[in-house]
Amino acid sequence: MADPRFFRRSGPFRLADLAAFAGAQLAPGGDPDRSIVDVASLETAGPQEIAFLDNRRYIRHLSNSRAGACLLQPQLADRAPAGMALLLSEHPYRAYALVAHHFYPAPVPTPGRHPSAIIHPSAKVPASAEIGPYVVIEANVEIGEHTRLKAQVFVGEGVIVGEDCEIGPQCSLQYCIIGHRCQVHPGARIGNRGFGFTADAGGFIDIPQVGRVVIGNDVEIGANTTLDRGASGDTTIGDGTRIDNLVQVGHNVQVGRQCILVAQSGVAGSTRLADNVSLAAQSGIAGHLTLDKGAKVAAKSGVMRDVPAGETVGGLPAIPLRDYFRLVTLWQRQLQGKADRNE
Amino acid sequence: MADPRFFRRSGPFRLADLAAFAGAQLAPGGDPDRSIVDVASLETAGPQEIAFLDNRRYIRHLSNSRAGACLLQPQLADRAPAGMALLLSEHPYRAYALVAHHFYPAPVPTPGRHPSAIIHPSAKVPASAEIGPYVVIEANVEIGEHTRLKAQVFVGEGVIVGEDCEIGPQCSLQYCIIGHRCQVHPGARIGNRGFGFTADAGGFIDIPQVGRVVIGNDVEIGANTTLDRGASGDTTIGDGTRIDNLVQVGHNVQVGRQCILVAQSGVAGSTRLADNVSLAAQSGIAGHLTLDKGAKVAAKSGVMRDVPAGETVGGLPAIPLRDYFRLVTLWQRQLQGKADRNE
Amino acid sequence: MADPRFFRRSGPFRLADLAAFAGAQLAPGGDPDRSIVDVASLETAGPQEIAFLDNRRYIRHLSNSRAGACLLQPQLADRAPAGMALLLSEHPYRAYALVAHHFYPAPVPTPGRHPSAIIHPSAKVPASAEIGPYVVIEANVEIGEHTRLKAQVFVGEGVIVGEDCEIGPQCSLQYCIIGHRCQVHPGARIGNRGFGFTADAGGFIDIPQVGRVVIGNDVEIGANTTLDRGASGDTTIGDGTRIDNLVQVGHNVQVGRQCILVAQSGVAGSTRLADNVSLAAQSGIAGHLTLDKGAKVAAKSGVMRDVPAGETVGGLPAIPLRDYFRLVTLWQRQLQGKADRNE
Repeated sequence: MADPRFFRRSGPFRLADLAAFAGAQLAPGGDPDRSIVDVASLETAGPQEIAFLDNRRYIRHLSNSRAGACLLQPQLADRAPAGMALLLSEHPYRAYALVAHHFYPAPVPTPGRHPSAIIHPSAKVPASAEIGPYVVIEANVEIGEHTRLKAQVFVGEGVIVGEDCEIGPQCSLQYCIIGHRCQVHPGARIGNRGFGFTADAGGFIDIPQVGRVVIGNDVEIGANTTLDRGASGDTTIGDGTRIDNLVQVGHNVQVGRQCILVAQSGVAGSTRLADNVSLAAQSGIAGHLTLDKGAKVAAKSGVMRDVPAGETVGGLPAIPLRDYFRLVTLWQRQLQGKADRNE
Repeated sequence: MADPRFFRRSGPFRLADLAAFAGAQLAPGGDPDRSIVDVASLETAGPQEIAFLDNRRYIRHLSNSRAGACLLQPQLADRAPAGMALLLSEHPYRAYALVAHHFYPAPVPTPGRHPSAIIHPSAKVPASAEIGPYVVIEANVEIGEHTRLKAQVFVGEGVIVGEDCEIGPQCSLQYCIIGHRCQVHPGARIGNRGFGFTADAGGFIDIPQVGRVVIGNDVEIGANTTLDRGASGDTTIGDGTRIDNLVQVGHNVQVGRQCILVAQSGVAGSTRLADNVSLAAQSGIAGHLTLDKGAKVAAKSGVMRDVPAGETVGGLPAIPLRDYFRLVTLWQRQLQGKADRNE
Repeated sequence: MADPRFFRRSGPFRLADLAAFAGAQLAPGGDPDRSIVDVASLETAGPQEIAFLDNRRYIRHLSNSRAGACLLQPQLADRAPAGMALLLSEHPYRAYALVAHHFYPAPVPTPGRHPSAIIHPSAKVPASAEIGPYVVIEANVEIGEHTRLKAQVFVGEGVIVGEDCEIGPQCSLQYCIIGHRCQVHPGARIGNRGFGFTADAGGFIDIPQVGRVVIGNDVEIGANTTLDRGASGDTTIGDGTRIDNLVQVGHNVQVGRQCILVAQSGVAGSTRLADNVSLAAQSGIAGHLTLDKGAKVAAKSGVMRDVPAGETVGGLPAIPLRDYFRLVTLWQRQLQGKADRNE
């Protein structure tokens, strides 16, 4: 159960309601009117709580669980203890997510402008938006309906934020256009000057960075992540893409739809990620490359050339991941051989 | 000597006082009433200053030093120049720290609330706390005695901060409970939404993140570091742990006591670090692993499996560090052999 | 063309003016009075726009371009289509930068203090400076002429910022002295407590960090980058150095002039970078090392020993880059050999 200091729980819900939320089917014998008060893990759930089993590795937790109900795949139903109500779903984790959203709905905006917010008269801020304390909104900004700007957010001149977005405390948004239903976590920096300069006898000269950051719908941007604006043309982030904390995206990078950029990864200027590309934690992609649809980069890898569709790469420089693992095996043997010779 | 623009020096102190602060012993011939005005390095110290020698590598600096006094190990006493007062300690660097704290005591809070701070009426903020300009404190927050919140800090609903903490400018604290005597440096982001979602036909669905971040006593959190809250259950940081700048700690990570996480390291979700674990700079730990007591991870390494107690690992994927160094040596020989064949 | 929501364009300019801005020569046949309204790429430019060709790889774009004018090297002049005015320069990219600055001049400060800024009476803030909303300036700060502090910046006691600087939104400046014409991007953290402590029976003891950060002229500091102050003595950044986003610079690091530190790189305490050193993205340098003049570190590399002047290193631990690439080739052959044996 979530700490009520921080989270407000809804419910209880009837099993029949939960089945409907989850697109799951109540197994025979389950009482559709049984009342469930919370979500919990198999190990901690009690008779009034609902758990889920998504990974066969944890099946041992099922038989000992005191959970009143469980979301699981039909073929595992006979492993459940007697008396546990079963909600059958081919995708129990997704079903859990849908149920959990009903118990713990996302906070809704409290419409209104905090009196301390400084909002330029030319900015368009609808009455349904929530503008927190010490927010600064410059000229010609447009904020969408039901969007929340938490405390101390900075929105620079001309920025557009779509509907139903949540911008966390202390973010700075500049030179950017953000779609609908985006979440931007605390301290994210969007639209920074790109790292563009050239050398002169006297030192470096800035290249004016006169592009934007254009972000689609349903995008998540992590805490303290930095997205630089284009030099000319735009840095773009496609619909549904998820970016974790402390990620760097350089100028003119194009990120496709439903990509995943895990924490501390980085993409150098002008590289293009097609749809469904995923970058694991602390990986890095050099500039001016293309990672094609569904390409995957292993954690900590450094990509120095294009990656074809569907390929998974790893290492420094990154090679097909199966080759990298073969190389690791080869090194282990060489080490072993050396150890043998030393005996 | 520290720049008086920024640092207020206390003192002078008598040698006898410094010995007492440091738990050191004044060597015969030293005048306990000699007045010392500052700390300095062996190379720069003058007759009214105290230096220290902790590392035999720098012993050459001792004989040429003009320092009035020096903290050093007893067995090095005979290497010091005549006239230098010696304070003998088995741990000269620790002794130096204790002495330096007397010359440069940590700033104390100036109790009171800046009139620009916005504090919800339900928040508990003691008179002894220092609340800086443009701080925002939401409902039901509890701040401990003598705690300082510097300018522009955001404290979200329900957060608890213990006594004698210092929260640097522009930090955001949400969904967290922080112990006593913690230091949180500028721009740290505590309690962010974890990177939790699952796939659906239509894209990704958020998993509600309804856990907390629970931080013990005497913890340091670096500038722009990000600590995500648990998905369910908590992300925890044990007593005395030190976290440097730009570190990422994922949801449900458990960090033990007196761990060290150096700059730009990262720990993925649900991994557990036992006590006294240290992660060097830019290292990364995959999710759902255990690093047992005293495990050490070398800089830039990527850990993909559990690490036993006391083991030091390095490389990508990380292996015992001695093996990684053997591998490096092997590579050097292979390169050399290749060069020989090319001759 | 840049989005006028965000960027104000100057001009139009005559070709003769552009040649003068760029230090370029108008090739015979070009009309010095021809009017040019904007910069653009060769692919998108129309007859009233000026493009540039800097890289022979893109020469195919030249012949098809509709650009009214182009900056390029004299020896490529005969590859341009008829009717395109040519501005000849040995350094077309630099020439482009100079021209682009005239079309898109850097924003100038709007002198004055936003009424919400909190400025200590002892701070020196000239009338020519721009102090944004919710800025906090503590005691004894000195701000230079024409310097801009954007919204919500924090400037701690005693800090000095030179002339013509731009400090982005939500930066925190403490214990530092910053030169002229510096750009500090959003969320940068300058002057944080260094990661300095020593162990005691009871845990860790802080080492007081009583040094400063001293930054030269014409320095750029990226978004969410962290620069720690010295433990005693200073962390220093030389004139003209460029630091990208999310970079970590530890206490007492000395960075020379015109160095380049690309995104997510890190430098551990007390290391010295001489002039013209460049660190590629996600590289890391251990503490107490020297990288001599012009040394280069490849992306993601981990440097564990000194690097001589002019050397380029890569890998973990970093070795001369040519050796690292030889090693990569060797690995490829070993993998291939293994594959052959498996056939």
